[in-house]
Amino acid sequence: MAHDHIERTARRTKEASRLVERLEGETKDAVLRSLAKSLEQRAPEILAANAADLDAACADGLPDAKLRRLELTGASLARMSEGVRQIAAMPDPVNQITRAWDVPSGLHVERVRAPLGVIMMIYEARPGVTIDAFSLCFKAGNACLLKGGREANRSNEALASIARGALAKHGAPADAVSLITTSDRDAIRHLLTLADDIDLVIPRGGESLIRFVHEHSRIPTVQHFQGVCHIYVDASADVDHAVDLCVTAKTSAPATCNAVECILVHNAIAGAFAPMLLARCKTDGVELRADERFRALASGCTPATEADWGHEFLDLILAARVVDSIDDAMTHIARYGSNHTESILTNDPAHAERFCREVTSSCVLVNASTRFNDGFQLGLGAEIGISTSRVHWYGPMGLEGLTTERFVVRGSGQKR
Amino acid sequence: MAHDHIERTARRTKEASRLVERLEGETKDAVLRSLAKSLEQRAPEILAANAADLDAACADGLPDAKLRRLELTGASLARMSEGVRQIAAMPDPVNQITRAWDVPSGLHVERVRAPLGVIMMIYEARPGVTIDAFSLCFKAGNACLLKGGREANRSNEALASIARGALAKHGAPADAVSLITTSDRDAIRHLLTLADDIDLVIPRGGESLIRFVHEHSRIPTVQHFQGVCHIYVDASADVDHAVDLCVTAKTSAPATCNAVECILVHNAIAGAFAPMLLARCKTDGVELRADERFRALASGCTPATEADWGHEFLDLILAARVVDSIDDAMTHIARYGSNHTESILTNDPAHAERFCREVTSSCVLVNASTRFNDGFQLGLGAEIGISTSRVHWYGPMGLEGLTTERFVVRGSGQKR
Repeated sequence: MAHDHIERTARRTKEASRLVERLEGETKDAVLRSLAKSLEQRAPEILAANAADLDAACADGLPDAKLRRLELTGASLARMSEGVRQIAAMPDPVNQITRAWDVPSGLHVERVRAPLGVIMMIYEARPGVTIDAFSLCFKAGNACLLKGGREANRSNEALASIARGALAKHGAPADAVSLITTSDRDAIRHLLTLADDIDLVIPRGGESLIRFVHEHSRIPTVQHFQGVCHIYVDASADVDHAVDLCVTAKTSAPATCNAVECILVHNAIAGAFAPMLLARCKTDGVELRADERFRALASGCTPATEADWGHEFLDLILAARVVDSIDDAMTHIARYGSNHTESILTNDPAHAERFCREVTSSCVLVNASTRFNDGFQLGLGAEIGISTSRVHWYGPMGLEGLTTERFVVRGSGQKR
Repeated sequence: MAHDHIERTARRTKEASRLVERLEGETKDAVLRSLAKSLEQRAPEILAANAADLDAACADGLPDAKLRRLELTGASLARMSEGVRQIAAMPDPVNQITRAWDVPSGLHVERVRAPLGVIMMIYEARPGVTIDAFSLCFKAGNACLLKGGREANRSNEALASIARGALAKHGAPADAVSLITTSDRDAIRHLLTLADDIDLVIPRGGESLIRFVHEHSRIPTVQHFQGVCHIYVDASADVDHAVDLCVTAKTSAPATCNAVECILVHNAIAGAFAPMLLARCKTDGVELRADERFRALASGCTPATEADWGHEFLDLILAARVVDSIDDAMTHIARYGSNHTESILTNDPAHAERFCREVTSSCVLVNASTRFNDGFQLGLGAEIGISTSRVHWYGPMGLEGLTTERFVVRGSGQKR
């Protein structure tokens, strides 16, 4: 019975996607602007639903960090609304011609951007994601199925209902967004088999959620595994600036996937770098877990264990290690990295080029913080996640990552 | 035990892929040119292995059509060799900068083409695919696992051994290509779970093979389902030319996925078109299965049944139907098409534009045969298959479809 309901929802969403893919850009933008306005005008109703979610979550003993992610405020609704307006203002990716060429038979070939169809997002109890995900998927011409953490069900229902209202107001199908509120694992597993009606699954959240989806999905998924980001401080780096950049890349947002987790420093400057990094970490409340060579230069670090390499701390903790060359740094990254983000700080152009060429993480930076691996910071306008798997999309996914390209070919009667 | 062996093979291929992704373009091209030469020089050895395969297949009563696909000749080896040389002559896709831009923080962002890693091809007893697949995957910087139909095992072993020799000769890892010769379904199912060592699976062959892979794979796959290709003959089309183009799009290669299967003709010209099409079909030995309105204009057609719509005949059979408008044609295609290839024949530019915009198959053509949906014909230089699913790649897949793009970002000390 639950399966029937879920199948019907997926089928309705697929049918809606066929209409959404043909909507004019102007219609889509009008829907998004109406949505932005309603998020402001109907804030009391959204906040009331959110308060009910928060009360229930408190009673269930949800940890503080999760409560903070669940909570909406007037300010967070205003930011949400502004985000939707920014997406409305972006150019329509659908029907963009990305490339065109002629072939000897006289055919003119174009690559034309097209929506994917139905995108299913599975995420935790963060109601902001509901609006972000819908806005991006819809702007890219897709319909979406949203399955958020159950603690946010009331908030998500309020938000989705507002989005459906904005769709209906402009003659777009309300089923362009559907909420899945069941948390029955059986039902979710069943959803993940509906490959005829769902084109792409994007899990966003903890590793166990992503592994669950990976294990059970018959539908293509974009993986967003952990971010074990490294900064390699080369022999030629400016030590003062490197210390500042490294610590800021942790403290500015310790629990995000693009925060740095491990600093690798060349032995030629480790003598100057290590004690300064430790001092700065102490000032900023960061625990520094270092290998023996690093600790010999900066006493007072926690000894690092094997488990600290390749670990995503998501907290005010940094691992650090002395290496003898850029090769050793790249070997460490190849062994312990997660293909998310790595950065080199250097004044040696040859080393910068080698690092960019040989480290093939989704984003590789020279002389910049790992925290710039972010759709907004890299100019994509928005982001639905950061893919660490190479198929379909690798790195921060904006509108383009939610589309495909098809071939459109114009001839003059060529037969074959 | 078989699982152990398969896991070790996959792991070795993954390790080889890390070396292949860093090979210089010149090295890859030297390997391919050596391979091309060896295919010619060692033709007797390959043909002997193939003869043994053919003998065994004959004894097992393999149908003629399959025997023809299994057979290699001096001429087919020469074509294979020429194909490899063409791939060697193409520009190296790896490290190509596909786009670059600056963001307000002063960062310079590049999108850089990168290999996928390990690609597994599962295909039928067609030894030519072994060399095509290896050459394309390798040129794009990937290692590959090849699982061909077991009837071709001896031929494939001879070909793969020559490829491994060419790799070793130029200091490239021989494990850049590994052959899986077991046909044990359990072993193949196990392979399809090795997502840490295999990045993409491309099944190529009949629908049951593709469904098997789809059902069991934990690894991203590119689907190449059937090609139910349509040509819509609009009211403004030139009737003589349309008849010729439609019939040729079937007879030139009736069993290929881009051959036309169904003709939709506008009622305004159906009176002229239908009898001419029938006459031409009779001349060319094509069975025409038509709906009642079509048969009223051209008596002598086979009555079409519901099962004939959306059917991939792979034979000298065409379905035909009269429609009242471009909308009716597009409705038929949406219902029965397979997202592969559709073409409109028209002299009305507005209709051409609508068709290109609203029919979102992997390839849509105006005034050209569906048989132009082919990597070579569309200027991709080569093709490993035609994807009918939208994620990762949609349409004919050449070198570009075997790569991803990563982000490379250069700064001047930007912290965050």
